[in-house]
Amino acid sequence: MTLHPNDPSLRSWVAVAPESDFPIQNLPFGIFSPPGGAAPRAGVAIGNQVLDLSVLVEYGLMESLNLPDPSVFHEYVLNDFIALGKPYWQAVRARLSELLREDHPELRDNAVLRQAALYPMDKVEMHLPVRVGDYTDFYSSIEHATNVGKMFRPDGDPLLPNWRHLPVGYHGRASSIIPSGIPLHRPKGQTRPNEQEPPVFGPSKRVDFELEIAFITGGPTALGDTVSTAQADDLVFGFVLFNDWSARDLQKWEYVPLGPFLGKNFGSSVSPWIVTLDALEPFRVAGPTQEPVVLPYLQYQGKNNFDIALEVDIKPQEEAPTTICRSNYKYMYWNYAQQLAHHTVNGCNINPGDMYASGTISGPDKGSYGSMLELSWGGKEPIPLANGKTRTFVEDYDTVIIRGFAQNAQVRIGFGEVSCQILPAK
Amino acid sequence: MTLHPNDPSLRSWVAVAPESDFPIQNLPFGIFSPPGGAAPRAGVAIGNQVLDLSVLVEYGLMESLNLPDPSVFHEYVLNDFIALGKPYWQAVRARLSELLREDHPELRDNAVLRQAALYPMDKVEMHLPVRVGDYTDFYSSIEHATNVGKMFRPDGDPLLPNWRHLPVGYHGRASSIIPSGIPLHRPKGQTRPNEQEPPVFGPSKRVDFELEIAFITGGPTALGDTVSTAQADDLVFGFVLFNDWSARDLQKWEYVPLGPFLGKNFGSSVSPWIVTLDALEPFRVAGPTQEPVVLPYLQYQGKNNFDIALEVDIKPQEEAPTTICRSNYKYMYWNYAQQLAHHTVNGCNINPGDMYASGTISGPDKGSYGSMLELSWGGKEPIPLANGKTRTFVEDYDTVIIRGFAQNAQVRIGFGEVSCQILPAK
Repeated sequence: MTLHPNDPSLRSWVAVAPESDFPIQNLPFGIFSPPGGAAPRAGVAIGNQVLDLSVLVEYGLMESLNLPDPSVFHEYVLNDFIALGKPYWQAVRARLSELLREDHPELRDNAVLRQAALYPMDKVEMHLPVRVGDYTDFYSSIEHATNVGKMFRPDGDPLLPNWRHLPVGYHGRASSIIPSGIPLHRPKGQTRPNEQEPPVFGPSKRVDFELEIAFITGGPTALGDTVSTAQADDLVFGFVLFNDWSARDLQKWEYVPLGPFLGKNFGSSVSPWIVTLDALEPFRVAGPTQEPVVLPYLQYQGKNNFDIALEVDIKPQEEAPTTICRSNYKYMYWNYAQQLAHHTVNGCNINPGDMYASGTISGPDKGSYGSMLELSWGGKEPIPLANGKTRTFVEDYDTVIIRGFAQNAQVRIGFGEVSCQILPAK
Repeated sequence: MTLHPNDPSLRSWVAVAPESDFPIQNLPFGIFSPPGGAAPRAGVAIGNQVLDLSVLVEYGLMESLNLPDPSVFHEYVLNDFIALGKPYWQAVRARLSELLREDHPELRDNAVLRQAALYPMDKVEMHLPVRVGDYTDFYSSIEHATNVGKMFRPDGDPLLPNWRHLPVGYHGRASSIIPSGIPLHRPKGQTRPNEQEPPVFGPSKRVDFELEIAFITGGPTALGDTVSTAQADDLVFGFVLFNDWSARDLQKWEYVPLGPFLGKNFGSSVSPWIVTLDALEPFRVAGPTQEPVVLPYLQYQGKNNFDIALEVDIKPQEEAPTTICRSNYKYMYWNYAQQLAHHTVNGCNINPGDMYASGTISGPDKGSYGSMLELSWGGKEPIPLANGKTRTFVEDYDTVIIRGFAQNAQVRIGFGEVSCQILPAK
């Protein structure tokens, strides 16, 4: 009997602990290097193992799919696989689900193949899953935009006039997107701490994280074409956790009138496993009511938010971590389909592997704010840590860890984590 | 006798008209398809001919260079050639100069090879010369920033406080950068023509060009590394003409607080030939005095502006063009070395083929303003055309053509042109 890959009754012959982010219902895609320095290739996570898709191709286990290009899983990035389009994404996922389910012997009972295709997750090196052609960052949490507005424009309406009419976004730097585990040096740059004095140069004193989720598209679309909210589901491959590192003091001085630049482009960290839109389908929830009613091209049918619990830890070097934020992707005012429809309504083209981050995901309560700027309210309210110390912004050697997972009574679809340590300025 | 490739006394055995943009002293690099649908490959322009570099490799004429990877000229983009670095850029240019000079028989006297390697420029198809990993747009003309400030903030200082302290820039969209000759549809989007009413959706009514020059870098550099103003010359491969198409009405409504997005990302047009920094060396001039003195990381030695004459034509369909702007790259307040030093001072990494546009290049006089926004002063002063009509912004079926050239008494180093027609909204 063929069960849908999301069926909660499915079990794998690979042992999966109850608290694992990666049950057979998830099967997120990533790029990894096996132990011993072999070349990067595509894999999916199952429990605490990684299944090597290039080996499955080599042993002929993907032949029934008639992939237009079976070499896509041998490449260093997933872009060419993603370019195959949604029917192939779904066919591959269904086949992997079949190969891994407990009652399917094809891989389960082939010891040689199992040995060749499965690696312990803690023994492999994870890489950036895609070559990001273009990276866009939105600003789609109403709680975050309101908090920032209150701090930066205390005398006016915290939301600017355009905010409720369109998902505000801007282009970011693709080159400095890095996978989890790679440290970043504290950025240097210009700031103007005293408005009566000239600007000064030095290491940023206000390095901050931003808790975000990014989606990754297929495509390409042609220049001039648009993607409607209804078409978005065919073009969104999946989601990753995203830390949009920000140097608040650099950003404050530089960002008028053309937006963030050096305050953001020193680095952005992403989780290595792309959780597919298909795997998240059971976790759709309604988003907030949008008032005023949006223009027709931004309207949508159904539920386009996702109930994904999010947590942020700060871990000082060689000390225990403290969870300083618990938020949820369901709080987004503008959803991924609206973001993509807006992005393309002017004919802007998209490519496979393009990345679109949500903007900081803050919730309604203080403990759910998705940045230190908000948690410490501009540095005025220090955040207590487990070690008895406090933080207002990220200090040298601190590691920031974001985790995310969707969970119901039957299944947990997790993202793993994105972790990055801030080293002193070079 | 070996003469430097910039020596003005050099002449080629390929006929070069006196008014040509492409004498032997230029040798700009591009990607072209020969007639008949053959695959794109690398070439240089010489007079009204294109020299096929992949054919030179195949015939063994580049062997003396010991290129680490001779296949770079067979690729669809120049990125891998550019990644070889400045010593190879210079060695290739010197070798091409030798092969093309009138007293060098190696290619001149080999009819079979000449037939295989040279194509009439009007018979080939030109492509985007690089795969643009990241595209940055600066805002570095003081005349342009002042004009825009006067129009948008009539009650304040036209220059914002940061403008004289750092080269303001922002990230743009790489996917929608297109080569000369490809038309664009008028973008649709949200605007708010009446601030007392809700925003409306429809085709932009204020499509504008921006006259810019972009430089293209080598690299890569490592994340965390910086490029000083003194190191910039080793990392800048060359320059192209750049039309940063802008929808002013979309931009005005969307751009606060995070900068331009849909008002820009529907398309940017570039000229197909990359004029190397080496070819432009004879045209260095001093830039404007910077007051106040800039921070040490933005200071530089020598002359980092270039005397490059720039012209913009508007051509209504089936009518004669009108030159509506004559400007010059020498007016830039912030030069390319300062732009690159600023961009990387926070550790932002760069890659071969990355593109960095100057921002609109306006001069001091009204006829030198580099956008219709400035030329028509926000639409209030219609620009007369040769056909007796006027323009405030670009109308459907208008073609905008940008030309650029550096010229002294002995030599003309030209860019050719970048041309793009605006079609009605889809």
